[in-house]
Amino acid sequence: MSEFFLDKRLAAVSVHALDLPLSRVLVMDDARFPWLVLVPRRPSLVELFDLDPAERPLLMEELAIAGSQLKALTKCHKTNIANLGNAVPQLHIHVIARQVGDAAWPGPVWGKGEAVPYAPQALEEFVQNVVNMF
Amino acid sequence: MSEFFLDKRLAAVSVHALDLPLSRVLVMDDARFPWLVLVPRRPSLVELFDLDPAERPLLMEELAIAGSQLKALTKCHKTNIANLGNAVPQLHIHVIARQVGDAAWPGPVWGKGEAVPYAPQALEEFVQNVVNMF
Repeated sequence: MSEFFLDKRLAAVSVHALDLPLSRVLVMDDARFPWLVLVPRRPSLVELFDLDPAERPLLMEELAIAGSQLKALTKCHKTNIANLGNAVPQLHIHVIARQVGDAAWPGPVWGKGEAVPYAPQALEEFVQNVVNMF
Repeated sequence: MSEFFLDKRLAAVSVHALDLPLSRVLVMDDARFPWLVLVPRRPSLVELFDLDPAERPLLMEELAIAGSQLKALTKCHKTNIANLGNAVPQLHIHVIARQVGDAAWPGPVWGKGEAVPYAPQALEEFVQNVVNMF
């Protein structure tokens, strides 16, 4: 049985917040957008439909909890919940809190300008808030 | 009990292909990208997590079928499966076939240039292929 490894390109731009029953929860180090990434901890997944059908409802629930809690935390206008994977093939799903007038509004966040790293204490606080969501 | 109505802004840029048990399947009239939109036929949904928890697994399965069949049909490199809803609030999930080197690659498709309408016969053929997926 092969193991789960987090793609180094995802690890390089994020902090590991916690592991849910299925997914690893990453916090993207970009203070412009409260932005989580959920990575199902199964080897060799690329597409959403590569996940075992028996585990798909669990992923849906983890995304729903992440989205609703992130919205409650940030009081955002809308969440964006999306699998793209054009650049990094490992299956990962973005859960992003969007505010009217944010740095990419109303467009998508991907490829928009450069990430603005959090101040260390702000990152630590946000990660702790994310851990406390679940 | 309130009824389901398709947002006019979604209807204006798409063709109604078919209705699945939960979702209406639209084909976006943009020949640059084979692009479906699934709209759960329930009133007053905005966020993914607004959908009744009992119906979420069904949405996940409809997305998985749509994505895997669209990939089989188009032999695309990757699917993008995403709920944004920044511009049109009614809950709708994009299922897009992406090819290396397409008009937005490797970026997201939303807000990228102008849609290129299909020739009438090409649209009819694609819609029929989509109907036959399910």
